[in-house]
Amino acid sequence: MKLLIVGGVAGGASAATRARRLSEDAEIILIERGPDVSFANCGLPYYVGGEIAERNKLLVTTPNQLRTRFKLDVRTQSSVESIDRATKKIRIKDLTSGREYDESYDKLILAPGAAPLRPSLPGIDLPGIFTLRNLQDVDRIKDRVDRGVQQVALVGAGFIGLELVENFVKRGVATTVIELSDQVLPPFDKEMTTPLAQELAAKGVTLMLGESAEAFEQTSTGLTVRLKSGRTVSAQLVILGIGVRPENTLATNAGLEIGGRGGVRVDKQMRTSDPDIYAVGDVIEVNDSVTGSPTQVPLAGPANRQGRIAADNVFGRTAQYRGTQGTAILGLFDQTAAMTGASEKLLKKATQPYRKIYVHPAHHAGYYPGAKAMTLKLLFDPKTGRLLGAQAVGAAGVDKRIDVLAVAIQAGMTVFDLEEMELCYSPQYGSAKDPVNMAGFVAAGLLRGDHPQLDIESVLTTPVEQRPFLIDVRTAQEFSSGAIPGAINIPVDELRGRLNELPRDRQIAVYCQVGQRGYLATRILLQHGYSAANIGGGYKTFKLFDLSAH
Amino acid sequence: MKLLIVGGVAGGASAATRARRLSEDAEIILIERGPDVSFANCGLPYYVGGEIAERNKLLVTTPNQLRTRFKLDVRTQSSVESIDRATKKIRIKDLTSGREYDESYDKLILAPGAAPLRPSLPGIDLPGIFTLRNLQDVDRIKDRVDRGVQQVALVGAGFIGLELVENFVKRGVATTVIELSDQVLPPFDKEMTTPLAQELAAKGVTLMLGESAEAFEQTSTGLTVRLKSGRTVSAQLVILGIGVRPENTLATNAGLEIGGRGGVRVDKQMRTSDPDIYAVGDVIEVNDSVTGSPTQVPLAGPANRQGRIAADNVFGRTAQYRGTQGTAILGLFDQTAAMTGASEKLLKKATQPYRKIYVHPAHHAGYYPGAKAMTLKLLFDPKTGRLLGAQAVGAAGVDKRIDVLAVAIQAGMTVFDLEEMELCYSPQYGSAKDPVNMAGFVAAGLLRGDHPQLDIESVLTTPVEQRPFLIDVRTAQEFSSGAIPGAINIPVDELRGRLNELPRDRQIAVYCQVGQRGYLATRILLQHGYSAANIGGGYKTFKLFDLSAH
Repeated sequence: MKLLIVGGVAGGASAATRARRLSEDAEIILIERGPDVSFANCGLPYYVGGEIAERNKLLVTTPNQLRTRFKLDVRTQSSVESIDRATKKIRIKDLTSGREYDESYDKLILAPGAAPLRPSLPGIDLPGIFTLRNLQDVDRIKDRVDRGVQQVALVGAGFIGLELVENFVKRGVATTVIELSDQVLPPFDKEMTTPLAQELAAKGVTLMLGESAEAFEQTSTGLTVRLKSGRTVSAQLVILGIGVRPENTLATNAGLEIGGRGGVRVDKQMRTSDPDIYAVGDVIEVNDSVTGSPTQVPLAGPANRQGRIAADNVFGRTAQYRGTQGTAILGLFDQTAAMTGASEKLLKKATQPYRKIYVHPAHHAGYYPGAKAMTLKLLFDPKTGRLLGAQAVGAAGVDKRIDVLAVAIQAGMTVFDLEEMELCYSPQYGSAKDPVNMAGFVAAGLLRGDHPQLDIESVLTTPVEQRPFLIDVRTAQEFSSGAIPGAINIPVDELRGRLNELPRDRQIAVYCQVGQRGYLATRILLQHGYSAANIGGGYKTFKLFDLSAH
Repeated sequence: MKLLIVGGVAGGASAATRARRLSEDAEIILIERGPDVSFANCGLPYYVGGEIAERNKLLVTTPNQLRTRFKLDVRTQSSVESIDRATKKIRIKDLTSGREYDESYDKLILAPGAAPLRPSLPGIDLPGIFTLRNLQDVDRIKDRVDRGVQQVALVGAGFIGLELVENFVKRGVATTVIELSDQVLPPFDKEMTTPLAQELAAKGVTLMLGESAEAFEQTSTGLTVRLKSGRTVSAQLVILGIGVRPENTLATNAGLEIGGRGGVRVDKQMRTSDPDIYAVGDVIEVNDSVTGSPTQVPLAGPANRQGRIAADNVFGRTAQYRGTQGTAILGLFDQTAAMTGASEKLLKKATQPYRKIYVHPAHHAGYYPGAKAMTLKLLFDPKTGRLLGAQAVGAAGVDKRIDVLAVAIQAGMTVFDLEEMELCYSPQYGSAKDPVNMAGFVAAGLLRGDHPQLDIESVLTTPVEQRPFLIDVRTAQEFSSGAIPGAINIPVDELRGRLNELPRDRQIAVYCQVGQRGYLATRILLQHGYSAANIGGGYKTFKLFDLSAH
């Protein structure tokens, strides 16, 4: 067996080492265009900020380590120019000498990754405009920061962009974020990003939503970014973080099947349309494991798994990739945002039926010091209760709950299973009713009909005269410091004694701060014959929508 | 419907509030022997230490809050003396006035909890010997510490005992722990408690394993605890934390069916042998959801769920309890230990077939500062790979991994599913290959036969002359600072060139620090025709066993 692997970072390196463990005598050649293999691309922003102080920490392994330990023929600074599928050969160009030569293969694994988008805008090639993909990029960016850049403009508020923002701010650089959509972190639902936008504002970051860069101009002090709105941003350093495109040129030129988003099409064994060629990582199109639809998910975890699976299949095993859930996490100063499965906007786009709930629990027992509030959103099938997606944002414990829910989605669990989950409880770590249990109670109560629920958007988008009779069941003090417009205040503890104030012939909507007192109020009203529903997630959820609208 | 609930802490309070949400017009009487309802019993040790500074934080709710918000008839300081099942009445004694009276019921829920064991030893009633169950107990203990107790003896190294130890040490009290078994935290497997014993030693705690208190004597300076071995311990304060027994007197006297361990028998609807009487919480016997065998699990999370389920069934719903997994967690200074599902010792006792693996990964990406090592142990079915149990110990990220594995066990997942889990990865939170993925890789590799594994105990318990040929594949430097007795050193990077040094006719066992290089070495040897296996979890696992043996 002669196995060639194109690309030596996450998927390619995983495939190569797995291949060697499966076969001591295979000839395995790993070809990488850059000078490094298997570097920690997810750590690059933290090297800019100095959190990761030593550059060599970013090298997960070196070409020499792979040669010695895994008996791999590692060829860095080598670009693969073409694939000749008929003769099963690839053409390799040694980038240091310029020499080109052919290498034959029995099997070929493509793991070239994805390249940051660099739109052809006026001035895009001016010095000081960078993307961030590899160690050479990060060296350039860090060098500018070290030399005292004053202002940086980030174009794109995705994961890498926001991670860079945190690190620029830590270095004392004035930072402006320019994002085309009307929210940061576009894979998330908009209201869930409200705390992130607030966090950016609190740290002095200028956030420009609904804006895009149209042109870049050199000035005496650096660069001016011209925006579509006509506004301008001054910066000495511009980072483009507007997304990536699969490095599909090699595959396209070889006539391999390509998906609608530019990703190489593979089957569950990671095989392309040519049975001797596999592809893994950011270059491929994957199936979303919740909706089943094809998508691009450039993440390191899936890339590693795919590399492993491709190697298994090369050596005659029948490993299958199950699809990608899109589990992702962002740390942004003191906030963490994480998600898994489908977002609400994705479900809407796919016209897939869903219901949703919000809870705002503390990350551990409230009676133990240091409890931090989080917002947890759950999306689920309205008939079966099967989990479709989850998002959370907060100062602590977010990663744990999304991991738990990622497993629940993987297992095909329902909201009823969440009620029964038996999770770690001691007051420093969780609660007797964990946030995940709480989310399960609310969602299951909704599906059982115990707990009719109105989404706040549906209330706010209804003309005022058609809205339900709105009751704020919090205390008078809570009510006076801010309420949903149009609500009257009847604290839940007084509700039973004031039922005569309520209309019998009109839908009633109640809410409290997070939903719990509203739930009790809904139960009281229903049992007294009123038509009542709780506004899901209460005033806190209203505020997430309200603040994200401005 | 007239519903009486006996006991107002976790299970009882949950049942009462759930009942009210299900029925506005039911008459619901909550009878509690103590002065408080629904207090945070898991927080008591941290009130002693001062971490929880205000006593009222421990009151999750008050009788008045339950009366106002949930229209409950709450009767504290009231003891239930007997149940007359024929006439469906209970006899209640008002502990403040001494008055006794009867109360009839349609349905009765028993939630009296469990009482700390207080063995009848000589001197057991001397002043200064306490158990910890409620706020009155904690007041007494805290008062002694506040008044300057110098030495405390903890009898029993279970969860509550060790939590108290941490808090006594924080208060500057010299602490001795006396534990009957040969390890701390007996629900865990012994080797997994090695880091906890080390942590206790590092904090200056005197740990006496395999010891039990035989008698207590008054001295001029306080108390002397006489141990079975003849040794003595001086202390001014003694806490008994040797376990609890279900408060089953009421149920026993009423002729309800009781299990072998003293817990009230209930069906999946939480119904006792009398269909009008339910029981929940620490007083009942539950089924272990992994082994199916009856057990006692005094934990707040399950108690809350059971209370909810009992109330559902009282009001005609058909909620079912799925059994208890025994998910539990302990924080001990800078260490966390957590478990879910069956322990190895439990599986051995139940003669249930299993295999096990150990991994020692960092809690997040090693290239990001602050990564802490943990040890994660997985127990699984040798045929199907179904997860049976998991335990972890380390300085960070332990709760998250055990929660993830608790869900995996709940879902009936296998070690092959762990390989595919898509968990949150960003370098502050995890790794592209999360500890749970790593455990899955090792366990799945073992079951697929890719990765034959020897448990270190089986090597150490084999007579020296029959042991496998033992190779330490770490570096010479690692080898020189400590190795498994009898091993020779061939670093994995040299192994391919030194195969001629190895016996063809003898089983070879390799090991490295944590198992990963050992895995590669095993693959190399197997493919060159040697009979080889990896010692699971490597030298780190050996040390856990080795240190726990002394």
